Amino acid sequence: MVIGAIEAGGTKFVCGIGSEDGVILDRISFPTEQPEQTMSKVIGYFQDKQVDAIGIGSFGPIDIDPQSPQYGYVTTTPKPGWGGYDFLGTMKNVFDVPCGWDTDVNAAAFGEAKWGAAKGLDSCVYYTIGTGIGMGIYAEGRLVHGLVHPEGGHIPVRRHPDDPFEGCCPYHMDCLEGMASGPAIEKRWGSKGSELAADHTAWRIEAHYIAQSITCTILTLSPKKIILGGGVMQQKQLFPMIRSEVLRNLNGYVSSPVILSDIDHYIVAPALGANAGLTGSLALGIAALTKCNTKAD
Amino acid sequence: MVIGAIEAGGTKFVCGIGSEDGVILDRISFPTEQPEQTMSKVIGYFQDKQVDAIGIGSFGPIDIDPQSPQYGYVTTTPKPGWGGYDFLGTMKNVFDVPCGWDTDVNAAAFGEAKWGAAKGLDSCVYYTIGTGIGMGIYAEGRLVHGLVHPEGGHIPVRRHPDDPFEGCCPYHMDCLEGMASGPAIEKRWGSKGSELAADHTAWRIEAHYIAQSITCTILTLSPKKIILGGGVMQQKQLFPMIRSEVLRNLNGYVSSPVILSDIDHYIVAPALGANAGLTGSLALGIAALTKCNTKAD
Repeated sequence: MVIGAIEAGGTKFVCGIGSEDGVILDRISFPTEQPEQTMSKVIGYFQDKQVDAIGIGSFGPIDIDPQSPQYGYVTTTPKPGWGGYDFLGTMKNVFDVPCGWDTDVNAAAFGEAKWGAAKGLDSCVYYTIGTGIGMGIYAEGRLVHGLVHPEGGHIPVRRHPDDPFEGCCPYHMDCLEGMASGPAIEKRWGSKGSELAADHTAWRIEAHYIAQSITCTILTLSPKKIILGGGVMQQKQLFPMIRSEVLRNLNGYVSSPVILSDIDHYIVAPALGANAGLTGSLALGIAALTKCNTKAD
Repeated sequence: MVIGAIEAGGTKFVCGIGSEDGVILDRISFPTEQPEQTMSKVIGYFQDKQVDAIGIGSFGPIDIDPQSPQYGYVTTTPKPGWGGYDFLGTMKNVFDVPCGWDTDVNAAAFGEAKWGAAKGLDSCVYYTIGTGIGMGIYAEGRLVHGLVHPEGGHIPVRRHPDDPFEGCCPYHMDCLEGMASGPAIEKRWGSKGSELAADHTAWRIEAHYIAQSITCTILTLSPKKIILGGGVMQQKQLFPMIRSEVLRNLNGYVSSPVILSDIDHYIVAPALGANAGLTGSLALGIAALTKCNTKAD
């Protein structure tokens, strides 16, 4: 079996092929341009790969409701050319194989649950914290979709008392993404996060917002693992700051030893590292194939 | 088939029997005392009812992890006598039938999904807003449990700018429950909510907190229906205030017509009314029976 995988990001696309046990065998990456240019590279890559299925984890918002006429479309993104683009349909027109289709963050959560940091668990939440903030949810052994799909990056947050920054979300100004995304850090401090010292005040404030959102997630969903990926989380000093702030926020209320005594293994980096997204898409492809085979039985 | 149902609340217990299609045939109610007195009434009620299964929706926190040695116990409640009490085991010792066991709010969410406001949908969130604030989650056709269970009543909230009340949650002071529960209203205004006029400022402030938490829930879980029950929600003037505040918070970001054009049917009261909890427990009993029969096949 050869499974194709697409990690479709707003900045770059990663395409690859892998095996049924989650091993990536080959990958390429290129910048996201207009859909025509980008998809012709995608199609070119898979053309001679003889894939049995393809999994796609895409930037959004996307339509993931199989009942919807726009199923498989990128919907209201401001990204030029991509709003209303039929991503899944374009792939299915060229490749006559089962295709999995979900958000990039749900794909990453799925990959981590299958082969990574949440392996063997029936729930986890995956955050990507970078240009935007996204959230994928795996609960009771299933990816959560719902009415649209989780958009946990936009929840309202309590302001840090030392933070006068007005926020930069075009919809909500000072929501989580507006206060804690990469662009928020850059706008607040006048430098990219990657250029700030590890002991800069920026990280104390960043940890405050991320910890607050994780606190909400623990209280709301009670996931068995929380995985933090994305560019901002390359700042490894954030992890201990976030963990101790989460414990302070919860104040002993959620009396699980997993949180109270072992938070270092509860709030973690992706075990699949930079391959978390692509491996997750691979998992979506395998799931699509399995579902298809089950139906055929 | 006769299915038994227990809605075990911190203030009162409701026991009943019902049919497989969700109809309650008989019910009694009594105040919650020490476990021995209370459970002897529960057992007395079901003794001659010849039930085929029993569903229990209980106040918490409770242990709902089937792998845990304390599965079926009430855990850290301050309610005298109930901390560490083996509720499910006590029932199973007397009644040799399949027993469903979940939180009171998950039970209510399940009942509403099966026969009520979320009938036919694969997701909904049920809030009870009263003495405490609890949250039950039904997602992708399953009740969500996770590490402990959802405790969405305790999420941090942004303070209303006109609200100097310090909050009354013993764990978090000014979390959602600390600011918006029945006791919070009474402590803030010096009168019970039921004694305040429908146009009292109290309700504008109450709507602010509830709408904020619903905003978080929509962005995090994207449920297909949000159901608001509990004593505080008897103040029907809250519904339109909450709906318009949710729309203002989201600011068009979640572009679903269900929210943008039809919010009156999206954020609703329980369709099962005062029977939501008991009917939900009935649904848990039926699910336990079905699961047991499936295993036996």
